[in-house]
Amino acid sequence: MKYSPLFWPIGLKGSSIYILDETALPQKIKYIKARNYQQAAKAIRQMKTRAVGQVLLVFYALLLSLRKKVPLKKVARVLNAARPTLPFKVLTDMVLDWQKQGLPLEKCILGFLNTLRQKRIRQAEQAAALINDGDCILTHCNVSGLMPLIGEFCRRQNKKISFYVTETRPYLQGMRLTAWELQRSGFAVTVICDNMVAEVMFEGKIDKVIVGADHMSQNGDIANKIGTYQIAILAKAFNIPFYVLCPPPSRLKCGSQIKIEVRPDKELLEFGGKRIAPAGVKGYYPAFDVTPAGFITKHIYLELSR
Amino acid sequence: MKYSPLFWPIGLKGSSIYILDETALPQKIKYIKARNYQQAAKAIRQMKTRAVGQVLLVFYALLLSLRKKVPLKKVARVLNAARPTLPFKVLTDMVLDWQKQGLPLEKCILGFLNTLRQKRIRQAEQAAALINDGDCILTHCNVSGLMPLIGEFCRRQNKKISFYVTETRPYLQGMRLTAWELQRSGFAVTVICDNMVAEVMFEGKIDKVIVGADHMSQNGDIANKIGTYQIAILAKAFNIPFYVLCPPPSRLKCGSQIKIEVRPDKELLEFGGKRIAPAGVKGYYPAFDVTPAGFITKHIYLELSR
Repeated sequence: MKYSPLFWPIGLKGSSIYILDETALPQKIKYIKARNYQQAAKAIRQMKTRAVGQVLLVFYALLLSLRKKVPLKKVARVLNAARPTLPFKVLTDMVLDWQKQGLPLEKCILGFLNTLRQKRIRQAEQAAALINDGDCILTHCNVSGLMPLIGEFCRRQNKKISFYVTETRPYLQGMRLTAWELQRSGFAVTVICDNMVAEVMFEGKIDKVIVGADHMSQNGDIANKIGTYQIAILAKAFNIPFYVLCPPPSRLKCGSQIKIEVRPDKELLEFGGKRIAPAGVKGYYPAFDVTPAGFITKHIYLELSR
Repeated sequence: MKYSPLFWPIGLKGSSIYILDETALPQKIKYIKARNYQQAAKAIRQMKTRAVGQVLLVFYALLLSLRKKVPLKKVARVLNAARPTLPFKVLTDMVLDWQKQGLPLEKCILGFLNTLRQKRIRQAEQAAALINDGDCILTHCNVSGLMPLIGEFCRRQNKKISFYVTETRPYLQGMRLTAWELQRSGFAVTVICDNMVAEVMFEGKIDKVIVGADHMSQNGDIANKIGTYQIAILAKAFNIPFYVLCPPPSRLKCGSQIKIEVRPDKELLEFGGKRIAPAGVKGYYPAFDVTPAGFITKHIYLELSR
């Protein structure tokens, strides 16, 4: 099985964490180094890595801090505060619990990461089982290497599939990351702007929607990259199945309790560091939205506890 | 009453047509010259002007050709072919009819343009009557100066209003044109990405949607900038009124007969002449979509015949 570099974008070698710089893709495949937890938190805040990359970075930052004998409670506090919508606290609490119980921490963390890897592969396999020969799948943003993996499983089952990807403004993760990883894995992929979703659905081009999620509450509501919610509403309007590759549930009861991160408006008013909007005009950039469970045809769970 | 430069972006002086270059806004307010109908058609194809600007340019190109004694049938053929979704033929046929009837052509064309100007102002006034004090209006793309004019009428009626504008990828007409003309007219305007519509509606930020239309068929279906259809579906889902500033109806019976222009994918895969998409990835760029009449709370007609 081949994996996208985005499937496992973080590594730990010696006393440095290597972070695939997702903001430089697809023009450059470069890794940046974080030598301590503060640099790791900064990379999260600057969106150098996202989605699963952030989860991995939290664990590797804890592991590195453990080896450097930095108090993990302090590390956890800084990491938890990096981005409000992401339930990092669930992860850091788990590690702090292991510590409290006197478990072998390094072994626990590495074991957890290994399980995560296996279960993510299993998640892609489960998604592939929902796909029919000839299906065209619409996706949004980037699901950290899972889309090409779903494609690989389909290929093994002799199902020919293709993809439409929204460009995903303002960071263009769909165009820069998902289209890139699908293309290099040999799948047919077409990029559309975020405002073309209803049109391609109306034209009958889309058979299934598959997206990821950054946060799932107890009731199955999910927070994912801004734009997911409206794709779910459109999928329902056009009777197209809407599948979500979910993370483990957080402790929150429902989606309305998930805090939505509002990022600086210059991230949408500028492009490549140059202002494109008229002077004085302001923008609004909620980075995520919440899709109620009722819009989700099927949750594809990450079964870490099994 | 103050008018946006986009309200009447074309002029004819001597033997040159002056075209406000909408691709240069908001950084530069510059006018390009067209000295004949071929250059006028080229400006339409290159989207230097759009919406009402294209309609005006068709008339000014016919007027200039008339003065230069170029056969108008030939001119009409070239203009009609410039962009497939726009019903230029209705306009050029009207002028050819006047010619056939032996009417004073120059006087007819100038009279028509004057009526168009008056009726567009009336259209903005009718839209303003639908707005309540405190309303926040979401719009998409650019309606050629009508949004600030609606704002001016509201101001006269002591109604305080504000605007949200989708950036409108890939040409960013919402961010570059609409936000610009609203801002310089003194209205509060916030730009969002095209994928944030459901979220701002969910947050209760939007009271009304008002968009324009490039084509209206006999049954009231409209073709407008790509993205309009999905905003209409979302407005319905959130119970928000969806108003359309319409052009006169074409001869087509319904929206499914409107030919949708598909533009070169490099217009979305490049930004500022530089490729942003991964090498080898293709895009799909339908420039318009059709919103069925059933999604339109109220058509605001341009009553040219009255």
